[in-house]
Amino acid sequence: MKVATQEKINAILANMKNRGIDAVLISDFETGRNKNLQYLSGQPSDAMLALFQDGFTALIAWDMVVAKQLSEVDKLVDVGEYNRSYRAALVDVLKDKLGDKFKLEVLPTESHLLALQLQEAFPDGEIICKGDGIANEFIKARAVKTPPEIAILKEGAAATNTIIRKIKSFIESNRGLREVDLAIFLETEFKKAGGEGPSFDTLVANVDRSGMIHQVPPASDAQLDKPGLALTDFGLMWKGYATDVTVPLLFYPLSVEQQRIIDVNREAYDIAINMLEPGIPAHIVAEAAIGHIKSKGLNMPYGLGHGIGLEVHDPPRLAPKPTDPELLKFWQETPLEPGMVFTIEPGITSDIGGSRIENDVLMTASGPEILTVSGPIEFR
Amino acid sequence: MKVATQEKINAILANMKNRGIDAVLISDFETGRNKNLQYLSGQPSDAMLALFQDGFTALIAWDMVVAKQLSEVDKLVDVGEYNRSYRAALVDVLKDKLGDKFKLEVLPTESHLLALQLQEAFPDGEIICKGDGIANEFIKARAVKTPPEIAILKEGAAATNTIIRKIKSFIESNRGLREVDLAIFLETEFKKAGGEGPSFDTLVANVDRSGMIHQVPPASDAQLDKPGLALTDFGLMWKGYATDVTVPLLFYPLSVEQQRIIDVNREAYDIAINMLEPGIPAHIVAEAAIGHIKSKGLNMPYGLGHGIGLEVHDPPRLAPKPTDPELLKFWQETPLEPGMVFTIEPGITSDIGGSRIENDVLMTASGPEILTVSGPIEFR
Repeated sequence: MKVATQEKINAILANMKNRGIDAVLISDFETGRNKNLQYLSGQPSDAMLALFQDGFTALIAWDMVVAKQLSEVDKLVDVGEYNRSYRAALVDVLKDKLGDKFKLEVLPTESHLLALQLQEAFPDGEIICKGDGIANEFIKARAVKTPPEIAILKEGAAATNTIIRKIKSFIESNRGLREVDLAIFLETEFKKAGGEGPSFDTLVANVDRSGMIHQVPPASDAQLDKPGLALTDFGLMWKGYATDVTVPLLFYPLSVEQQRIIDVNREAYDIAINMLEPGIPAHIVAEAAIGHIKSKGLNMPYGLGHGIGLEVHDPPRLAPKPTDPELLKFWQETPLEPGMVFTIEPGITSDIGGSRIENDVLMTASGPEILTVSGPIEFR
Repeated sequence: MKVATQEKINAILANMKNRGIDAVLISDFETGRNKNLQYLSGQPSDAMLALFQDGFTALIAWDMVVAKQLSEVDKLVDVGEYNRSYRAALVDVLKDKLGDKFKLEVLPTESHLLALQLQEAFPDGEIICKGDGIANEFIKARAVKTPPEIAILKEGAAATNTIIRKIKSFIESNRGLREVDLAIFLETEFKKAGGEGPSFDTLVANVDRSGMIHQVPPASDAQLDKPGLALTDFGLMWKGYATDVTVPLLFYPLSVEQQRIIDVNREAYDIAINMLEPGIPAHIVAEAAIGHIKSKGLNMPYGLGHGIGLEVHDPPRLAPKPTDPELLKFWQETPLEPGMVFTIEPGITSDIGGSRIENDVLMTASGPEILTVSGPIEFR
């Protein structure tokens, strides 16, 4: 079943019409994932979708059993009938519907080689690709969740909360545990709770590793509860939707500087949460929280938050306004609208360990609803 | 630590020199993964690498803590200093080293937008992208594992085997279990064994779902041990390397047609294994196994196997020779050489359930070494 409502599809088609785009191509493969495919067609992955200006959709798929069961499109093409050449199948789909002369828009992340091949196959066709083209329409559509999406995200958050609440006693009854022991515990709980599994590699980092942004490996066999700042960053896939939280784990005693990191992290988190209201531009909130951390001489080398949904990094992004002119060209101010679901996750990286407080937030017409219950857990 | 030996790097540089390529660009981001980055630089992900014809390497990274710790390059650039614009950082890196006029090759999966932006930034530069260009050199290099890689893959296979051997008794002592219960068990065992986690979503499918190629969701809360053909397809990440096996689970009684599926699957597996010898072209083996299944009026809609390594789908591919002329243009015969590590996984999809037998194989100078111990497990 597709996710997009007719209203959202109409907005995308209107944008195509305004700009004279006859068709938009979306590819989702192992080498490059794009959840707009599932959003528009219901097909979970490993396929190509052509969306035409009149709303007609054609899906080119490999696993026809999955495609027949889960996709909702006007035309379903078995790539097996094209000797597994998506390019060949796509050329036929385009020719059938549009002839030889058309404007086809591909997404910024589309394979460069495929774009070149399509241009070669259709010398009279125009292959368009823009940083601020149809991709922005998809971002706009997906940033504001539909009521069924919100219901699922709330269920996922509730399941995540039951797991967050088990962390303290699990660690207390397993002192001396390894990072990986907590990861095993969490991932087992994900499935016990009814989730599909982790929405990304479960990160567990002791004081020696918590200062990195993304730990490699995600959880090691080092002892977790060494004194200092540790953290776990994890999320649940729940009915196809991601949650994402980070829980700081404070193993006392902390040094004065470590305690200061936690305090400044909490201040930045409170600043961000207190600013949230319908209509406030995302970058204003991000700049305030990150600015606070920087004003204390500390380092936060990432954005304040991101949408969650079909992807763990869904729109919108809560990041400072870019200063690079090329990025600025494609940038759009993003007011935080009712129906958006996103993380707030200020954090600090340092050589003496890091901290990050991350919760999932639903913006409503009357203000933010904090869906998850993450916060620092103290072990003394 | 980079994986590529100097010999492998030299082969890549020689190819660049022969074709007049001044630099090759590799990007590895959430929107498009490319393990050639780690292969050449040690950087695990989320970065851009420029490899120059003289062997000089420049890495543009976001998480500088990880990059400093794990990468092995000549120049390390913090994208933070470019306001997080990889494009801007890359333009500087290229200008510094090559000036304004050069031939830069990008990989087939490179972002089309980035290629257009680079062409705009360097009107006198030539941006090359070919299906049979440098990508083929990377495939050739990575298809034949280095001795340290083989050692890790063997360790991973041994750990996988201990887990395969636990499946029968786990199911027997939990009759009535759900698909997800087996998935939880397996994934917990991965981490207990010392692995990083699953190398892909652990698939568990009862008779109603085993006929699909990739189940959605990967494991559901349906009862696993209903009579008929079930299977589990899973793999372990072990020190950064993937294993991949599929174990058919036969819950008796089976119908005559279900038993026939298992028998034909076994025959196809034996045909493939018995053909393996150093130098045999991969497509010959694939065509024989798939041809056998088709000759029995059954369906196998995927390739016979794939390399395993840094990715669960590493080179080489064991697939029939393509018939599509466009695919054929880029196709190369792949003799199975000593040092290649790959899956053999013939399988059958059908409406009455599916079967797939999959093991990991190392080709040696004296023949194939079957590293894993998967095979049908019977429950009566």
